[in-house]
Amino acid sequence: MRIEIVAVGTELLLGQIADTNSQWLGEHLAAAGVSSHFHQAVGDNSERIVLALRTALARSDGVIVCGGLGPTHDDITREAIAEVMTVPLDRDEHIVEWLRSVFATRGRAMPDANLRQADVPRGAAVIPQTIGTAPGLVCSVGHKVIYAVPGVPYEMAEMFERGILPDLRRRMAEASETNGVIASRVIRTWGMSESGLADALAGRIAELDAGAATETGSVDHAGSGPTIAFLASGIEGIKVRVTVRAADVAAASALLDEEERHIRSILEGSAGDVVFGVDDEAIENAVAEALLQGHLTVGLAESLTGGLAASRLVNVSGASRWFRGSVVSYASEVKVSLLGVPEGPVVTEGAAQAMAEGAKRVLGSDVGLSITGVAGPDPQDGCEPGTVFVGLARPGHPATAVRFAVPGDRHRVRQYATIAALDFLRRTVKGDLTT
Amino acid sequence: MRIEIVAVGTELLLGQIADTNSQWLGEHLAAAGVSSHFHQAVGDNSERIVLALRTALARSDGVIVCGGLGPTHDDITREAIAEVMTVPLDRDEHIVEWLRSVFATRGRAMPDANLRQADVPRGAAVIPQTIGTAPGLVCSVGHKVIYAVPGVPYEMAEMFERGILPDLRRRMAEASETNGVIASRVIRTWGMSESGLADALAGRIAELDAGAATETGSVDHAGSGPTIAFLASGIEGIKVRVTVRAADVAAASALLDEEERHIRSILEGSAGDVVFGVDDEAIENAVAEALLQGHLTVGLAESLTGGLAASRLVNVSGASRWFRGSVVSYASEVKVSLLGVPEGPVVTEGAAQAMAEGAKRVLGSDVGLSITGVAGPDPQDGCEPGTVFVGLARPGHPATAVRFAVPGDRHRVRQYATIAALDFLRRTVKGDLTT
Repeated sequence: MRIEIVAVGTELLLGQIADTNSQWLGEHLAAAGVSSHFHQAVGDNSERIVLALRTALARSDGVIVCGGLGPTHDDITREAIAEVMTVPLDRDEHIVEWLRSVFATRGRAMPDANLRQADVPRGAAVIPQTIGTAPGLVCSVGHKVIYAVPGVPYEMAEMFERGILPDLRRRMAEASETNGVIASRVIRTWGMSESGLADALAGRIAELDAGAATETGSVDHAGSGPTIAFLASGIEGIKVRVTVRAADVAAASALLDEEERHIRSILEGSAGDVVFGVDDEAIENAVAEALLQGHLTVGLAESLTGGLAASRLVNVSGASRWFRGSVVSYASEVKVSLLGVPEGPVVTEGAAQAMAEGAKRVLGSDVGLSITGVAGPDPQDGCEPGTVFVGLARPGHPATAVRFAVPGDRHRVRQYATIAALDFLRRTVKGDLTT
Repeated sequence: MRIEIVAVGTELLLGQIADTNSQWLGEHLAAAGVSSHFHQAVGDNSERIVLALRTALARSDGVIVCGGLGPTHDDITREAIAEVMTVPLDRDEHIVEWLRSVFATRGRAMPDANLRQADVPRGAAVIPQTIGTAPGLVCSVGHKVIYAVPGVPYEMAEMFERGILPDLRRRMAEASETNGVIASRVIRTWGMSESGLADALAGRIAELDAGAATETGSVDHAGSGPTIAFLASGIEGIKVRVTVRAADVAAASALLDEEERHIRSILEGSAGDVVFGVDDEAIENAVAEALLQGHLTVGLAESLTGGLAASRLVNVSGASRWFRGSVVSYASEVKVSLLGVPEGPVVTEGAAQAMAEGAKRVLGSDVGLSITGVAGPDPQDGCEPGTVFVGLARPGHPATAVRFAVPGDRHRVRQYATIAALDFLRRTVKGDLTT
């Protein structure tokens, strides 16, 4: 089963936004064992959307078309699909009623423009909406298929999982495609450079390559061994992606487990506790786990990061069990008056320690974590932009502080400082637990 | 002149990296007045690259193919172009010599694999490299053209400016295309739905459509009137994009200015102060401007948003002139002990007002802004998830609070609450200035 992705939106062609939907869909199709040989992007132009869809149907078994299902005049994907199917659009009264009820719930009258979202190419099935107002479509074209989903990323993602993937699986089963599954796992690290990771894993990669060469030589071969790739995702750390192809999900999972063990043991031997999670586990989840294990609560004092560290911690469901709050002391006077930091330079080890102790005291937490530093563009307190001090106050230990140098502009300095601070908290709390 | 972009690389199809090259090229082609109606991405597979190039040549006047010019076995763009041109590849001895000299300069012997980078489809012109080792190509196919550039972003960008753009301009001049420039401006709004905006602007869009219909009917016509599109960007509000084509940058700018005035006046008449900025101006920039005009500083008290509002404000360069800090009172006790909020339910109008007053007092700011509410998934204090109270304490006025209902999961509730609160602050401060 080969599925082509067609992203609709003039803003994509003009480079005003990045086509993250095609990237997401490509990743999730691959994970489901579905091939995707081509992606296209096309503007909000009827004739060209029709041409893109016909081109895609000619060279693939199906299409996911993303975007152009909104209520406004430039949302014309429904019309283009009807033309490709050579059928008229029918207004679906159930959708009209549902749309009215959605607006009624929000206490607003439905604009007439939204009625267009109830138009369905004759013969197409509807994927109901659960979040927004644009229903998705499943449209058979001969023995091929066009799936239409909204361009709003989280609506697209939700509809792909709920409405497209099951239909794709059914079609693949009917076609008796023994395609197996491609599965991958991302091992997430902080504290090593990409080339450092590559060096550490070079031996393992060579072993895997040697193994692969003795097989069929085709990466499409079912049951091919793991491949390893590196993804530098900046503020989220560096990711090591392991990809396997296997007969089924269970077999793929076993291969991934084994390779993950290999990689963790190699990295731990070479650089210590650099792996903080896998797949969707972000640094804040790792912090939560460490604090819960230690039965500790944390409070923050942030100046450089301006609330960014706190805003990451509250992403974790149930954060109220271990997160007390944060004092964002952007003005130096606030550091003094609220946190009790001595007057003087605020980008120092001592200031970071005093901030951490202040946070612990003021917020009534077991642990206090602080972040101070220079975002740039100008130096401050004799420190260059990118200088970061992270302070930590915890029960039974004197307050400590570490210094980091991180690259980038103001925005990236803040993001790097946040993950560096949270990783320091995670490692220290974990270290205390094991000693 | 319509140029199609073809990005080559299996990693793009698998979603392992984002296709930032196509975005960059799309933006720079538009700025140069070159239309781009389609983008494609294709994997490292000879047959499919050939098919993608033929498809592109059939529906566009030229192609920029990006990637697949490296030295390894999966770099096969050169071969694919030769097949499309139906010519052989010739090894260019000048390139071979130059490659040897590049490696010699770096003190390394050239691997034989790199010789492939000296292969040129017969009849093609070479764009010399200035940074890496992969030369670019300009390949005539009948009266159309294929440009090939490396996939390394900065090599691609440099070669586009130096080798492709001048050739494109020459071709457009020969074809006597009065190509002019395409320019657009994004008008950023908060407080109206996408369909509400579309309704408000329906009359103006009809006027513009009528005007366009009396012209050549082609959007490629130089000097064609503005077109309007809507982009729902969730937590960044809803964007109204105006696009014009004009003879030069100054003329385009004048058209955009005029249309922006039109749209602002229509929206202001129908819904008040909903436009907070244009293009890259985010809500935090609008807040900064309002506070600076009013000579006011602000301090925050956040529970629901966990520091997110503060972290947006510090994005603005020079924020220390008007931003004091934030108390992230995630635990209810912190609201009481630090902000002086009376004990009791914390998702209420009264709690929001007390938090705003507490922030103003504790942080020593002129204005206090607070955000409390329910992120979900469970209700709290009798309020459903998505309930948000924003409180505001400012000099010479009693503290006020407003209630919002925002959609989405925990993460989106926080994001929406943040922009809603910052927009409320912006509007109120601006309102005070004009009364």
